[in-house]
Amino acid sequence: MLADRTMPTSDAHVNHHRPDCTDWIRSSNNVTQQFLSFGGMPDVVSLAGGLPAPELYPLQAVRDATLRALDRHGAAALEYGPVEGLFALRQLIASRVSATTGGTFSADHVLLTTGAMQGLDLIGKVLIDSGERVIVQAPTYLGALDAWRPRRPAYERLRWDATPAELRGAKFVYTVPNYSNPTGALVPQAQRVALLEQVLQAQTWLVEDDPYQALQLDGPAGPSILAHAAARQAGAYSGPVIYLGTVSKSLVPGLRVGWVVAEAGLIQTLALAKQSADLSSSMLTQAITFELLDSQFDHAHAQTLVDAYRPRRDALCREAALHLSDWFEWEVPVGGMFVWMRAKDRAIDTNALYRLAIEEKVAFVPSSVFDFSGDDRFAMRLNFTRAAPAVLAEGVQRLARAVQRYLKTQPAPR
Amino acid sequence: MLADRTMPTSDAHVNHHRPDCTDWIRSSNNVTQQFLSFGGMPDVVSLAGGLPAPELYPLQAVRDATLRALDRHGAAALEYGPVEGLFALRQLIASRVSATTGGTFSADHVLLTTGAMQGLDLIGKVLIDSGERVIVQAPTYLGALDAWRPRRPAYERLRWDATPAELRGAKFVYTVPNYSNPTGALVPQAQRVALLEQVLQAQTWLVEDDPYQALQLDGPAGPSILAHAAARQAGAYSGPVIYLGTVSKSLVPGLRVGWVVAEAGLIQTLALAKQSADLSSSMLTQAITFELLDSQFDHAHAQTLVDAYRPRRDALCREAALHLSDWFEWEVPVGGMFVWMRAKDRAIDTNALYRLAIEEKVAFVPSSVFDFSGDDRFAMRLNFTRAAPAVLAEGVQRLARAVQRYLKTQPAPR
Repeated sequence: MLADRTMPTSDAHVNHHRPDCTDWIRSSNNVTQQFLSFGGMPDVVSLAGGLPAPELYPLQAVRDATLRALDRHGAAALEYGPVEGLFALRQLIASRVSATTGGTFSADHVLLTTGAMQGLDLIGKVLIDSGERVIVQAPTYLGALDAWRPRRPAYERLRWDATPAELRGAKFVYTVPNYSNPTGALVPQAQRVALLEQVLQAQTWLVEDDPYQALQLDGPAGPSILAHAAARQAGAYSGPVIYLGTVSKSLVPGLRVGWVVAEAGLIQTLALAKQSADLSSSMLTQAITFELLDSQFDHAHAQTLVDAYRPRRDALCREAALHLSDWFEWEVPVGGMFVWMRAKDRAIDTNALYRLAIEEKVAFVPSSVFDFSGDDRFAMRLNFTRAAPAVLAEGVQRLARAVQRYLKTQPAPR
Repeated sequence: MLADRTMPTSDAHVNHHRPDCTDWIRSSNNVTQQFLSFGGMPDVVSLAGGLPAPELYPLQAVRDATLRALDRHGAAALEYGPVEGLFALRQLIASRVSATTGGTFSADHVLLTTGAMQGLDLIGKVLIDSGERVIVQAPTYLGALDAWRPRRPAYERLRWDATPAELRGAKFVYTVPNYSNPTGALVPQAQRVALLEQVLQAQTWLVEDDPYQALQLDGPAGPSILAHAAARQAGAYSGPVIYLGTVSKSLVPGLRVGWVVAEAGLIQTLALAKQSADLSSSMLTQAITFELLDSQFDHAHAQTLVDAYRPRRDALCREAALHLSDWFEWEVPVGGMFVWMRAKDRAIDTNALYRLAIEEKVAFVPSSVFDFSGDDRFAMRLNFTRAAPAVLAEGVQRLARAVQRYLKTQPAPR
């Protein structure tokens, strides 16, 4: 079921009497597609996706917000938008970012996107030419690697104690400091400040991807790197941090509303790239999002999510301690959606394990897809937000059976 | 106001202590952004955009469809979608295409996109590597040129009587046969059939972009090229035509729902590229669109649009005959949104005229932006759908004043 990333996976059915597809797409993978589709298969326990709990989607609130949005904007909610997005929502996000960071942000610092994923795509389009250096927190969010594949960067692993000389000349540094995808790690404040200092000295950009900010299961995450950058300057923000936000994890993904916060000149450039990608995102879903944020519904809803996700995390980790700890080790994440399990014995290849896991009707994400080289086959990402505690426990038990079957197929451990 | 396309327009404010933007974006233009923003300036008569009449947006129908969609799908309307889009809407579109073309299409032939513009972006991503040949109907829709700019194709003008040898080796041919953008031209059926034959012999792809299909002001447009391709084969469609549809011109643009219809293997590949662009389009707006199409509301609404747009076209052309015919010539379009006016005297440069037109508070689109070489400066595109007949007439009169001012600044005509 899991495509081998080194093989062409996509154009197998294309009629080869016609021209070939592009080089990059033939080196692509369809793993994310598979994970999203597993979300809809009732007999598989999916620990794979990065999906919220569907039973917590605030259907009534979205319905009410939709009616308010149509009343407030009328036909304007049905127009092509300005490329940059609904002005009122850009203003609202700028005002929130100003309040939480202490910096000075206006609508000019905000571009609305079709989910934060589109922000990654646009950043690649405006900053990466083929072969240019991009330095990424590793393991790295699969979606970022997907988004930038058409631009063909040369990746390097971020070392948190890198010197400015190591960063200089790179197009940007990429990090998910809050409850990182895939590891769930919360990057300590001292490391954030140190990295920002290095980035400033190296005169490059820093992309801070922050979808999980609201999912603070064990206390506050502390300031974003954007906040540290804003604190270092007076006047309108013009720092090196390009910040990505979204309502996909804190409210609902189906609105496809995300945003980029960055210095105003870069926002203009990103808007130009967005114009060539989809002209504008849906005004209607932006107007609905405005209502949900303006009423602060999202803050109340975040508490609902945290209260629901904490026992799920605990259930998954408790069951894993019972059934998986002979073979895997992990830290209990203090927020976000994921537990990152590393094999104690490097004889365990999670790509191979995945095939048996699907036979046992449980899905996870193997580490190879989060490694730009594809070499890391010794870990796996488990999601704890999508299913109820009992289902998560069942998933872990199935996974343990898959591990036991897997080990029987292997030579004796070294 | 009109950016010179040969100049960097976008990253002027980027802090150049940081790395430069990509090569392609520095050769980009922000014309579409300007046109979309003129739509919101009350004192300018915009004949520029390709925007529907906002007073005809079916607000009540969208409101009702939203409530029905939330009732029907519940939380599923708020999920990440499958990358390919809402299955029911893909099926519905496939069934309509089967009925109108006589071919055999299923959901596997349909990818839903964030407007047809995203379809163009994805086609570029999966088919164009730098320097590869793309053959375009000329003048060419600006958005297609924008979408493919990051991929750096080598453009050639489509000749309708091209030989297969001329098409062979090109990645694809691009055409807007129904009421083309920018010319408003309806490509005759014989030319469609001949082009398809050449494309089949040349074993390349043909991209048929069809946003204006519903706007048949003077009788039927006749079969699409997709229909001709489907008619030539038995069994599931596997032809060379990649067809783009949208509700942006026939219902509302703000839902951002478009689709690609193509052979199933290519749809899989395009879905892989879409996954890396925005994961999925909004399920909510797709579910709303399903309600509007399933109830056949769009068919009734198309009649409303046609009844409103026909007198607008007539008013614009009548006023132009009175005030612009000394300097420009045009055919009255039989559908769509645009009149294409060519200067009789090549001394008229519509890029220069544009600046004076904006001073006279009227906007149009100069021909240079529809020419991949940027050389064609002798024509302009006027839109007749956005404003009432009296406003269109006022716009033409302002434009005539701009032309008169322009000619006074020029040397005596040759």
